[in-house]
Amino acid sequence: MSRFWSPLVHRLTPYVPGEQPKLTKLVKLNTNENPYPPSPIAIAALRGELADGGDSLRLYPDPEADRLKQAIAAHFARFTIDTGQVFVGNGSDEVLAHAFMALLQHDQPVLFPDITYSFYPVYCALYGIAYRTVPLGDDFSLQVDDYRPPNGGIVLANPNAPTGRLLRLADVQRLLAGNPDSVVVVDEAYVDFGGETAVALVGQHANLLVVQTLSKSHALAGLRVGYAIGQCELIAALARVKNSFNSYPLDRLAIAGAVAALADEEHFTSTRQAIMRSREGLSRALGELAFEVLPSAANFIFARHPQHDAAALAARLRQRGIIVRHFALPRIDQYLRISIGTDEQCAVLVNALREMLYG
Amino acid sequence: MSRFWSPLVHRLTPYVPGEQPKLTKLVKLNTNENPYPPSPIAIAALRGELADGGDSLRLYPDPEADRLKQAIAAHFARFTIDTGQVFVGNGSDEVLAHAFMALLQHDQPVLFPDITYSFYPVYCALYGIAYRTVPLGDDFSLQVDDYRPPNGGIVLANPNAPTGRLLRLADVQRLLAGNPDSVVVVDEAYVDFGGETAVALVGQHANLLVVQTLSKSHALAGLRVGYAIGQCELIAALARVKNSFNSYPLDRLAIAGAVAALADEEHFTSTRQAIMRSREGLSRALGELAFEVLPSAANFIFARHPQHDAAALAARLRQRGIIVRHFALPRIDQYLRISIGTDEQCAVLVNALREMLYG
Repeated sequence: MSRFWSPLVHRLTPYVPGEQPKLTKLVKLNTNENPYPPSPIAIAALRGELADGGDSLRLYPDPEADRLKQAIAAHFARFTIDTGQVFVGNGSDEVLAHAFMALLQHDQPVLFPDITYSFYPVYCALYGIAYRTVPLGDDFSLQVDDYRPPNGGIVLANPNAPTGRLLRLADVQRLLAGNPDSVVVVDEAYVDFGGETAVALVGQHANLLVVQTLSKSHALAGLRVGYAIGQCELIAALARVKNSFNSYPLDRLAIAGAVAALADEEHFTSTRQAIMRSREGLSRALGELAFEVLPSAANFIFARHPQHDAAALAARLRQRGIIVRHFALPRIDQYLRISIGTDEQCAVLVNALREMLYG
Repeated sequence: MSRFWSPLVHRLTPYVPGEQPKLTKLVKLNTNENPYPPSPIAIAALRGELADGGDSLRLYPDPEADRLKQAIAAHFARFTIDTGQVFVGNGSDEVLAHAFMALLQHDQPVLFPDITYSFYPVYCALYGIAYRTVPLGDDFSLQVDDYRPPNGGIVLANPNAPTGRLLRLADVQRLLAGNPDSVVVVDEAYVDFGGETAVALVGQHANLLVVQTLSKSHALAGLRVGYAIGQCELIAALARVKNSFNSYPLDRLAIAGAVAALADEEHFTSTRQAIMRSREGLSRALGELAFEVLPSAANFIFARHPQHDAAALAARLRQRGIIVRHFALPRIDQYLRISIGTDEQCAVLVNALREMLYG
């Protein structure tokens, strides 16, 4: 507390990201990173940007990152997206923050599920936005008809975090149609691991903003690139906020690497397929150890063991150098969120759990 | 305008950065970039970060960027700064934005000069902060005694933009002592080109926040790295806002490059000395063409010609492929802001002006 702080600062309870341990040799399955390296074409593009002694780095980046917007539009060419429908930012967290400020600050409260990405209430506190959480079903499924009360916007992670559960595209469309006067933000950080993107609906729904990231399915968490797709009217609001906050959010290297990564369809497809295969294998193996595993369309699974406390399991795994995520929160404190690693990492986890539980 | 926009968005008039033309072969003296490449040690560090096929990029960066904070503390070792007194962000624009939100949102208006970095009123609009501008003297000098009215904070670019004028450290100290209950943000984007940094005063003044950037004197505008230095209480407020907005603002490459750049004292010293020498040469040459050149402690000069309209001069230079910055704003619309290029670029400019004005 300090007399120098703006009053708002006293009220903030910042988001706490998953631990980024500085030790190596850990099996790190706690922050949903991709176990495979990024596209070699992206790395070559980054090296190219450093040619001539890195002389280009003395110049500001393109504040509009036009090349990147073009690459994103091309990535979604099947839905006829143009660059005026694309917004880019320094990770999808920044894009989401701008979306809350630009599109969700209205008289009515914003709605989102009671169990979802825990940054959403943090953004609301930051911008003084009222919100109401809507309980998910007992199986953590989302019922579209629960999102009928007057609202100032709806935020939906799909697949949801940390449950991994997917809402079908037809249900997303029903939600959009049922709330024509509210912006619906669909946060698709994990959609490439088994979901259908709502980008398909952008042309028909003026109230839809889809947010994606290169952190997970493009294995570029270290580069910080996220984006939003929606009709021009929504994108214009994001641009006004961005240009009142930081004109150059993406550096030259992030732009160069992201452009090349998006063009490498082959690497993208093969790595996400490998992760989906590993997810099915890990889910089966944990099932054999009596875990209950929620159906997941993400690069993680959400699982509980009926006889073993989740926090204790996480602590015991940690002692063996395996890190998974545990949330000490109502309804989910008996679950572990486990990122999908390589098959080798998954096997290390399964063997450790087998030894711990069945000796 | 749109029913989907938050009411705030309608009120924003975003900052307009200097043009980033996509043509090459221009003599680009409009956005205060460094004419020399960044430290070769920094470029080597960036290449090093891409070893192993860029495998590290699949992992999130350190959200606290501890290595970078250590490098910044070491850069200011002569003032005994520790890492708890350092905040880092995605360019000094992001750092400034967080500072406005975290430290300048109080009942009284924020004060800054009438002629200064034009992003300051934009931040105020973004966060609903009232402000009052304080007129600079006729020679664009700042009078510390004008900053006595009750205020919610003071923001000072030193050297000032776009004038280049420096406020002496003793005057900064007088300003701090005269406003012990307000945060004074000293934006030192250009200080390495002839100023004395207020980081020297951080230990004595709890109300001081110094903001710097690697964009200018470290030639890394393309990498987006800025930072703030102040007592822990102020830094803690910035951290709370940052962790409610975007936990990972700096990517792995930006951290690696910035750490190495800050350690290369030799490159830093030789390039900024070269720029200061060129500035003196350019000021003299423009004086010989009858320009009035304000004394500058920055990597740009602010100059007017008593007989020639500044906007017209800028347009004619543009036709010759030379870009300088002109602001169509009260009090300064007869000035040109000219970034210091290499001696060769400065000579191209001087020759063009000589031909234009004296045939």
